[in-house]
Amino acid sequence: MSETRIFNFNAGPSALPLTVLKEIQASFLDFKGSGMSVTEISHRSGVFDEVINDTVARTRRLLNIDEKYHVLFLQGGASLQFAMIPMNFLGEGATADYVNTGTWSTKAIKEAKLLEKKISVVASSEDKNFSYIPKNIEFNKDAKYVHITSNNTIKGTQWHSFPDTNGVPIVSDMSSDIFSRPLEMEKFGMIYAGAQKNIGPAGVCMVILHDDMLKLSEELLQGENKTLPNMLRYNTYSSQNSMYNTPNCFGIYVTQLVLKWIEEEIGGLTKMEARNKEKGQMLYDFIDGSNFYRATAEKDSRSLMNVTFRLPTEDLEKEFIGQATKNRLGGLKGHRSVGGCRASIYNATTMEAIEALIKFMKSFASGK
Amino acid sequence: MSETRIFNFNAGPSALPLTVLKEIQASFLDFKGSGMSVTEISHRSGVFDEVINDTVARTRRLLNIDEKYHVLFLQGGASLQFAMIPMNFLGEGATADYVNTGTWSTKAIKEAKLLEKKISVVASSEDKNFSYIPKNIEFNKDAKYVHITSNNTIKGTQWHSFPDTNGVPIVSDMSSDIFSRPLEMEKFGMIYAGAQKNIGPAGVCMVILHDDMLKLSEELLQGENKTLPNMLRYNTYSSQNSMYNTPNCFGIYVTQLVLKWIEEEIGGLTKMEARNKEKGQMLYDFIDGSNFYRATAEKDSRSLMNVTFRLPTEDLEKEFIGQATKNRLGGLKGHRSVGGCRASIYNATTMEAIEALIKFMKSFASGK
Repeated sequence: MSETRIFNFNAGPSALPLTVLKEIQASFLDFKGSGMSVTEISHRSGVFDEVINDTVARTRRLLNIDEKYHVLFLQGGASLQFAMIPMNFLGEGATADYVNTGTWSTKAIKEAKLLEKKISVVASSEDKNFSYIPKNIEFNKDAKYVHITSNNTIKGTQWHSFPDTNGVPIVSDMSSDIFSRPLEMEKFGMIYAGAQKNIGPAGVCMVILHDDMLKLSEELLQGENKTLPNMLRYNTYSSQNSMYNTPNCFGIYVTQLVLKWIEEEIGGLTKMEARNKEKGQMLYDFIDGSNFYRATAEKDSRSLMNVTFRLPTEDLEKEFIGQATKNRLGGLKGHRSVGGCRASIYNATTMEAIEALIKFMKSFASGK
Repeated sequence: MSETRIFNFNAGPSALPLTVLKEIQASFLDFKGSGMSVTEISHRSGVFDEVINDTVARTRRLLNIDEKYHVLFLQGGASLQFAMIPMNFLGEGATADYVNTGTWSTKAIKEAKLLEKKISVVASSEDKNFSYIPKNIEFNKDAKYVHITSNNTIKGTQWHSFPDTNGVPIVSDMSSDIFSRPLEMEKFGMIYAGAQKNIGPAGVCMVILHDDMLKLSEELLQGENKTLPNMLRYNTYSSQNSMYNTPNCFGIYVTQLVLKWIEEEIGGLTKMEARNKEKGQMLYDFIDGSNFYRATAEKDSRSLMNVTFRLPTEDLEKEFIGQATKNRLGGLKGHRSVGGCRASIYNATTMEAIEALIKFMKSFASGK
């Protein structure tokens, strides 16, 4: 830890691996001997082709997927996907199932409804303030997809296993836990993620799309979707290696470096998951053993990415966050919509950061 | 010029001012004492508020515009605007005029037609391979807007004055010449620009929108546009300071630094324009005085941003580009759709770069 850097528990944009940041910095005026910054190279150049192709290749290796999945880079974040998904996959009369586990699921549902698409909310944890992940859900066999949010940054819950959907492909917003663990990819028709939590800077959205879903969207483009704008069609990206127009080159480059870090320094997703479990367990164990802090999510639904907790009073929470900031522990304030405290401990958060946080939490509690 | 940097004539992404790149590099691990990289700070933080608000303030000062114009940051590049413009401004039965001056205008026209909007192509320079800007155009008085491309990167032409449109607001794609000169903003209902040529890295698109246009779009949202996705509505951005969702924070930050450079180092848009004219004239004068190189655009329509030229044969062009690259002059190949040579000399291109290019061009020609 350099003396100027803080321990960063921001929910997103959030901490990136220090080795990644240092590599970006070191090569910022001269990228790979090109004599240009990575922000100045043409997206149609060989040097950028290597960046995007390596990012795709690393994604395939890490998730163990073959050419049946298309790895795409879009812009507009997960929020644009909330619209593109129903627009591309739901034709007249077709339906999809949605599970509501909090703010981001709710936004995805609202967007599909705004578009006047026919969707069913088949389960929700709103009854207990979204503090758990619903179980034993009955899915519709004829749904085109089942939409879930794999990790809920605001309420601090996470799907630890993915449901049996009778073969209906799952479409999951994984903005806050992509590449944090291995995935049974055969369950997924599509996963998508704004990069700014686990894989890069804001402004690039990764979409991993099964070819069957792409074909479904292409059938609709032949008919009722023929007026869909080019930038909202998945095949615009899949047919041109995400370069129909200029992509967010810098964002893709940072993503490449983060995936390289996961592969080469961490050692892949199984090890990444073990590290994340160790970090999460250490923090939750401390909170559970304390009679001062209280975790807000139900035990079996707790997120390994966002640890939400409360103190005895709101005044103490305010004091806690203020003192933490002075002690170089940043980003511990809960989302403005729910209050409380939250430590976001994504892939890049180190064990050192968790230890520093626990040490501070102990010291703060003992003074009260 | 550092010994590792090249002279970068890329068409986009393209050269950025060296002082800007150095500032990004120097603060990359600790942005403004935050202890975080600019890629790690929350978009909801005070430190980022300062970035985006200063970028907006500098835009207003440079273009001399007040609150009647909204300064917005979107994603998806100009290509997404090709769709958003007709979607937001053209209701049932409404029409718009388009002027076709090359590849990008053609794409904007195609996208409006794909959406089955009623538009008129009121002028085109396709008859002479888009080598000039049309004059004496008859515009439709009842059009909602007139769409033009102010600078044409591929064909090397530029509007040097903007047409009288009978009061119909001009909507201009200015991706390749925004902030290169002062503008009579009262003629414009909207200007938009992918950042990657004159103001920043790829992945952020600046939109400057007159309040009357915003109101027109909001009227349509009350009725026939009520199913328009949130991410495609301009008021989603104008009502939330471009932070309905996480914006491209890094892209906005680089834009801020480029605008600061224009204000504080160059001295504003009048001086920026004078510098661009000096650079362009030096290069065109050299080409015109040569009997080896030939400029492709008509004299009164020549772009000060993209100087397109040919050599006596395609073989010589290939050799020229190859030798230039070896001499640390990069990006001189014409667009893949037209061939030939092109020197993109945007704001950030220095006089030193122009001189180095001319010196090389002289030397290459004298050896033939």
